[in-house]
Amino acid sequence: MTTSSWVPGAAGSGYDVDHLPYAVFTTAEDDEPRVGVRIGGLVLDVAPVAAAEMLDVAALFEQPTLNPLMAAGPQVWASVRTWLTQLLTDEAERELVEPHLVALDEVTTRLGFEVADYVDFLCGKQHAENAGRIFRPDSEPLGANFTSLPIGYHGRAGTVVVTGTPIARPSGQRPSREGPTFGPTRRLDLEAELGFVVGTPSATPVGTGALADHVFGVTLLNDWSARDIQAWESQPLGPFLGKSFGVSVSDWITPLAALEPAKVALPAQDPPPLDYLVVEDPRPGYDVEVEVILNGEVVSRPPYRVMYWSPAQMLAHLTSNGATLRTGDLFGSGTISGDEREQRGCLLELSWGGREPFTAGGVERSWLEDGDEVTLRATAPGASGGRIALGEVTGRIEPATSQR
Amino acid sequence: MTTSSWVPGAAGSGYDVDHLPYAVFTTAEDDEPRVGVRIGGLVLDVAPVAAAEMLDVAALFEQPTLNPLMAAGPQVWASVRTWLTQLLTDEAERELVEPHLVALDEVTTRLGFEVADYVDFLCGKQHAENAGRIFRPDSEPLGANFTSLPIGYHGRAGTVVVTGTPIARPSGQRPSREGPTFGPTRRLDLEAELGFVVGTPSATPVGTGALADHVFGVTLLNDWSARDIQAWESQPLGPFLGKSFGVSVSDWITPLAALEPAKVALPAQDPPPLDYLVVEDPRPGYDVEVEVILNGEVVSRPPYRVMYWSPAQMLAHLTSNGATLRTGDLFGSGTISGDEREQRGCLLELSWGGREPFTAGGVERSWLEDGDEVTLRATAPGASGGRIALGEVTGRIEPATSQR
Repeated sequence: MTTSSWVPGAAGSGYDVDHLPYAVFTTAEDDEPRVGVRIGGLVLDVAPVAAAEMLDVAALFEQPTLNPLMAAGPQVWASVRTWLTQLLTDEAERELVEPHLVALDEVTTRLGFEVADYVDFLCGKQHAENAGRIFRPDSEPLGANFTSLPIGYHGRAGTVVVTGTPIARPSGQRPSREGPTFGPTRRLDLEAELGFVVGTPSATPVGTGALADHVFGVTLLNDWSARDIQAWESQPLGPFLGKSFGVSVSDWITPLAALEPAKVALPAQDPPPLDYLVVEDPRPGYDVEVEVILNGEVVSRPPYRVMYWSPAQMLAHLTSNGATLRTGDLFGSGTISGDEREQRGCLLELSWGGREPFTAGGVERSWLEDGDEVTLRATAPGASGGRIALGEVTGRIEPATSQR
Repeated sequence: MTTSSWVPGAAGSGYDVDHLPYAVFTTAEDDEPRVGVRIGGLVLDVAPVAAAEMLDVAALFEQPTLNPLMAAGPQVWASVRTWLTQLLTDEAERELVEPHLVALDEVTTRLGFEVADYVDFLCGKQHAENAGRIFRPDSEPLGANFTSLPIGYHGRAGTVVVTGTPIARPSGQRPSREGPTFGPTRRLDLEAELGFVVGTPSATPVGTGALADHVFGVTLLNDWSARDIQAWESQPLGPFLGKSFGVSVSDWITPLAALEPAKVALPAQDPPPLDYLVVEDPRPGYDVEVEVILNGEVVSRPPYRVMYWSPAQMLAHLTSNGATLRTGDLFGSGTISGDEREQRGCLLELSWGGREPFTAGGVERSWLEDGDEVTLRATAPGASGGRIALGEVTGRIEPATSQR
């Protein structure tokens, strides 16, 4: 059990010293972007404190992105975390630290890391089965390869955006009996996922035991999807423009170490995976409870702990063909859906392809409307016995550019 | 008709002033990477000449990548091209220029640009039909969407490599009747393509008339493919590890302007495309003749002029959903295959999925073997009445890491 911080309000806030997420921020007084750490309702401007203590790592925090810190590797991440914990729990440090704490509402955050390659997986069996039933009602819901490998595809790194960025309704080819027409999507969807941010690069395949050596942190991730565009374009090469208009991530990146107390066993994998996907760790999953909030109302509570494939398996698979890993690589879990209807992580499933609308805000809904605001929230068990709160991911739907 | 250069040997070499491709290079004497322009068998070190003439653009050439020049936009590209042409055709400039010409065999080139996002299209109807017949013999060879849109997917930007980089045989899950096994691919293939390199970024959709405003240049591109891995993993999200182990491009980037004389009409598009894909330009294709060379022997001559979808349509489609464009974005045409067997741009087609081996080096071949060297070459009509030679793309297959 970790001691609580001396910072007022940190205990029980979801942002005590058992969390310590990172972001890049500016303030009205200082528009130089730099690295901050959240503690309670405050942001610690790390660089001046590290400089005052003449730490070698001080330069890692005077940066417009987290990439240099991410590239520094797991030993640096661990020692920085130990140092920050000591600063924020030892009353003797208060005099040094307090002048560098800024109120959360006085900082402006931004996309914290430069995305190298973005990969999205399909690790949730419930989601894969539901999508199979909806899209291919005459076939087996689960493809023959699902239990053999974590299915994945590359997405568009250049359109990963930070929470708060508005999402314009994309236009594209929508199928119809008379042939496709071009216009704003009629089936705009969200996907509630976790995203894993790679710090340490690798030129060789990464084994399932090395997740924590390479993954710097975790973010909630909304993989916005246009289901009509996606359905028409996806054969034979997979999703393209139905996904590439925007992927929202948090400004705050939760260190992987902060999720150590959230580790859980995975559901059984049957058949057993091939050797390169075998995980020795008995608790390779994470007990992260996600909430999908539509215009202020919780419409779903997807539980990450039910996912079929673990992050360690995603990373091992991703690099198993010799593909190199770069600092800033981001990989998503795929939509998180539980067994229950109220645990489904996308509207495709919640409305069963539009055929069984759900109720939100007192009205029947199937897809996202212009003006809708979607927020992802999540908590997980923290080391202090309470829960940590992952950084929110929010986005409001704007009308298609051609319709304004 | 452009005048020929005063540089000895430039005329008729494929690298006269009607070409002027760019690369980033170093020499034994100067290991600072910088931008060079090829003329005949020589490389012009551009920066010192531009500095001597006190040009504003001089700094664009003292760079380790072409990205700053690429980002400068079409007016700068055109004025630099005019200036270089004048330097290399006017005898009066010889005294200034000659000290900055380096023999080709004294330079070391590298990947010339930092790849932002990499997209690969499927623009060739013959390739799509052949692949359909091979992979899905019981279905219509061409998918219902092929004539409606240029099908594309995102690839792995981090594994784009420069010509000459060895390609290690990837390992992965290979399907079999007893279930998948993990090991080196048994169906390693090449794909002969053109790649288009984006210079000018865009935050809004790019119309079909704006290709030359955004595309800086063209490269041959080999989209190495592991057909067994690809076949097993691709449902429902498309190719992933079967492609992400390596994509080879040229060190020399041919300016789009140098291909102006190569422009040709496209084959008729039936049905006519939707409005956003209509091209006003009567010659949106390019008459680029490609050669696929396996261990020194030409095994195929794919003609780019037969492609169904034009580069202008690829770019318009790619951005039609609002996806932003960045300097360094790279998009490939997809495999180039003509109507004849000897015009097929990949071994999958040349060997008909391994069922009809072809002969190379006096022996029957279906797929790439360890030690094979694959080279792509291409020429196109140049402004001088002769032909320009695109930068070669070569790669040798190394054994799988686990097999060495």
